[in-house]
Amino acid sequence: MTPLEYLSAHHDRSLQELIEFVRIPSVSTDPHHRGDMARAAEWVAAHLRQAGPIDVRSMPTPGHPVIYGEWLGAPDAPTLLVYGHYDVQPPDPLDKWLSDPFEPELRHGRLYGRGVSDNKGPMLIPLTVAQAFFATRGALPLNVKFLFEGEEEIGSPNLEPFLAANLRLLQADCVLSADGAMWRSDEPSVTIASRGVVGVDFSITGANRNLHSGRYGGSVANALHAMAELVASLHSADGRVAIEGFYDDVAALSEEERRAIAELPFDEARFLAEVGVPSLFGEPGFSTLERQWIRPTLELNGMWGGYLGQGSQTVTPNEAHAKLSCRLVPDQHPDTIRALVMRHLETHVPAGVSLSVRSDRHAALPYRISSEHPGLKTAQRVLEQVYGKTAVCVRMGATLPASELFKRLLGIDTVFFSFSTADEDFHSPNEFFRVHRLHEGLEAWTRYWESYGPTVRTVSAHRRSRAPVP
Amino acid sequence: MTPLEYLSAHHDRSLQELIEFVRIPSVSTDPHHRGDMARAAEWVAAHLRQAGPIDVRSMPTPGHPVIYGEWLGAPDAPTLLVYGHYDVQPPDPLDKWLSDPFEPELRHGRLYGRGVSDNKGPMLIPLTVAQAFFATRGALPLNVKFLFEGEEEIGSPNLEPFLAANLRLLQADCVLSADGAMWRSDEPSVTIASRGVVGVDFSITGANRNLHSGRYGGSVANALHAMAELVASLHSADGRVAIEGFYDDVAALSEEERRAIAELPFDEARFLAEVGVPSLFGEPGFSTLERQWIRPTLELNGMWGGYLGQGSQTVTPNEAHAKLSCRLVPDQHPDTIRALVMRHLETHVPAGVSLSVRSDRHAALPYRISSEHPGLKTAQRVLEQVYGKTAVCVRMGATLPASELFKRLLGIDTVFFSFSTADEDFHSPNEFFRVHRLHEGLEAWTRYWESYGPTVRTVSAHRRSRAPVP
Repeated sequence: MTPLEYLSAHHDRSLQELIEFVRIPSVSTDPHHRGDMARAAEWVAAHLRQAGPIDVRSMPTPGHPVIYGEWLGAPDAPTLLVYGHYDVQPPDPLDKWLSDPFEPELRHGRLYGRGVSDNKGPMLIPLTVAQAFFATRGALPLNVKFLFEGEEEIGSPNLEPFLAANLRLLQADCVLSADGAMWRSDEPSVTIASRGVVGVDFSITGANRNLHSGRYGGSVANALHAMAELVASLHSADGRVAIEGFYDDVAALSEEERRAIAELPFDEARFLAEVGVPSLFGEPGFSTLERQWIRPTLELNGMWGGYLGQGSQTVTPNEAHAKLSCRLVPDQHPDTIRALVMRHLETHVPAGVSLSVRSDRHAALPYRISSEHPGLKTAQRVLEQVYGKTAVCVRMGATLPASELFKRLLGIDTVFFSFSTADEDFHSPNEFFRVHRLHEGLEAWTRYWESYGPTVRTVSAHRRSRAPVP
Repeated sequence: MTPLEYLSAHHDRSLQELIEFVRIPSVSTDPHHRGDMARAAEWVAAHLRQAGPIDVRSMPTPGHPVIYGEWLGAPDAPTLLVYGHYDVQPPDPLDKWLSDPFEPELRHGRLYGRGVSDNKGPMLIPLTVAQAFFATRGALPLNVKFLFEGEEEIGSPNLEPFLAANLRLLQADCVLSADGAMWRSDEPSVTIASRGVVGVDFSITGANRNLHSGRYGGSVANALHAMAELVASLHSADGRVAIEGFYDDVAALSEEERRAIAELPFDEARFLAEVGVPSLFGEPGFSTLERQWIRPTLELNGMWGGYLGQGSQTVTPNEAHAKLSCRLVPDQHPDTIRALVMRHLETHVPAGVSLSVRSDRHAALPYRISSEHPGLKTAQRVLEQVYGKTAVCVRMGATLPASELFKRLLGIDTVFFSFSTADEDFHSPNEFFRVHRLHEGLEAWTRYWESYGPTVRTVSAHRRSRAPVP
């Protein structure tokens, strides 16, 4: 029996395991879910151990633990560092879900639940592929190190010190990432760039308490008016970010690069229907794909103040709050952008209120990989085998903080090889994962591991000599 | 024993009854409190019955019931219609309360709890005064009709049809209102005007769901940006309401009227310290008292959208919501202002989103009473007896929808004779009621009932002949 035959025979079990995994509400951002995070980490460690003779450790961090595993039984073969994450986004707003986010439901070939697509479904794939190799051949075709973190959805704050402290342990030829959704479900693609991110929370305070809007209204600053004015000042009327210096470090794309994006199949009508808006929107002078991939953004993620309940409460609110995040492109740096945002907020506070700013979350540099990288070439070849068509080169608007850290600290590139798809509503209500993609992913990862070794043996020897050593 | 001696002797019981009354969380705006509203109505009816031979009825409305009671045993004396309300504002934000809003706590001579000041403390005063008269004299010195509604905090939506359906039943010479807080606790005053109100709720919708801010950010309109832009457009930079036509119907005050306001004792430093802001704020060209009393306002009462939880969720929110209310002055009309607000919102919706507006709550005309009205003169005389100083004429920024309805439907004026004070944080956390004001109120209402009859006998005969009859 080959590994692929084994996987076919155990088709249903993979799905059942995913359902079990998704039932653990591993929301990393919310302290109430600390216990669930520990349960999810334990679940991953146990499943790695069940897959075969993998040396598994739960490695603590100041936040949630990293589950690490390694099998190094192929001395002449290269080493892949497999990356994924077991934490998920909060399920809010709960009332928009058609089924319980943590009780996965199968509808029309799609599994619905928080984290099914980002990243629990995709990260189960390498575990299952390892099991198939061990069960049929007793060994993997190359060396594999598994690194599953629990803080991706909060910007991987402890990954950098973790990598720095474990440089030798994590040495590898290439990162193969189970995270980083594919562009389309019907258009195989490899990702050559992703955006960075930086987040800032801020609050406006007026009076010392909510005031009666009749008694005081008109004579004391309303925190919501001030918040609206401040937020409105962040963009100009045409949709550009209005913060001074915001675009200064953006690297211009070559004509050829822009042409490559323009030549990708992109159906505007389909896009509009998918997101449910009547017309395109965004920074003037750029196409939708350019706005998503190569231009930086500033987006409010949440804003609130005053009475949010049913009916009415006639108050002049004294507090308003907002959370924003910027997506960054080469060569923007999170620290520079954070400083620009903070300066803008401080210099635009309306009269009668005070501002407080907090920025201790979410920072990651943008990332790029050469389109000639052997790991990427392997991915393209495998995708062509699985899908019977050429894999296009695309970019990603989202952020994978890990990839830039792997590059900077371990000296290796990351190949995104996830089988979730960008439209699967991760971070939104009714997140789903296409079940056929689970099986395609299992086949692709099996083929990748089988074919990566022979391809890169020479390259990897070269690469290894350049990797930093503590 | 005189009624005043009786009240002195039963000093503590009045406070205990108030505590019992406040324990019922009669939040009229929130459907979850429907049962509590019924309990509060029952409580009021039972206490009216206990006060003496009052004919008490619970009269249903499409919302919460009106508790009505009458004693008409003084055929030669005038008739007062006593008004108050048993419903309260929501206690939100709960985390700002130092004690449970529905478990009243006595601290430094103040009773803290939701509704203690607005309006449960003040409305218990006429009940207790009636009891004192019946217990000591077996009769009241004039005819009294009691009308306690349960919808004041939601704009008295059913009061108008209730009055229209009960014109003959409610006929009286004057309304004496237990609602309508006094300006200062140490400065006796009578109120000659109050502002009207109109409320509008609106929502912004962009995409068909919250979107991943990395995948989609920059290429689809963010509902929070649009909301901020729309809300910011409602005021000009100098603090004026920027809605076209908003000030068109505002009746200008005479020089004399403005001088009367300017001559009132008002300590700016004390005001700033009380609300906890560093500097005055508001429409240019007007003093703080003018901004609160004679100028219309537009205030956001609540605004929210996106992720409001702990930590972060990197979404491009597709929905944003807001609640606003305007305070109106003579001769503005709620329908006109509502239409102007809606037209402004509709014509200022930013690109890429759609707007929905709802306005089915909170509308009341502004109100005025002549400073020569005999009921007002009685109030001034009684206040001088109780406090030993002259009662000044003031205005009220807040709204008592009832007063304008009584005028329009029953043809009678309303004298505000509440013993709560404007600084007692009703509609805010830590609402309180000064216990000494409860006792001053009991004395003042007793004196009012005793002295109103002789004063107005002639006037009332004249007035009665003009009252509308169904």
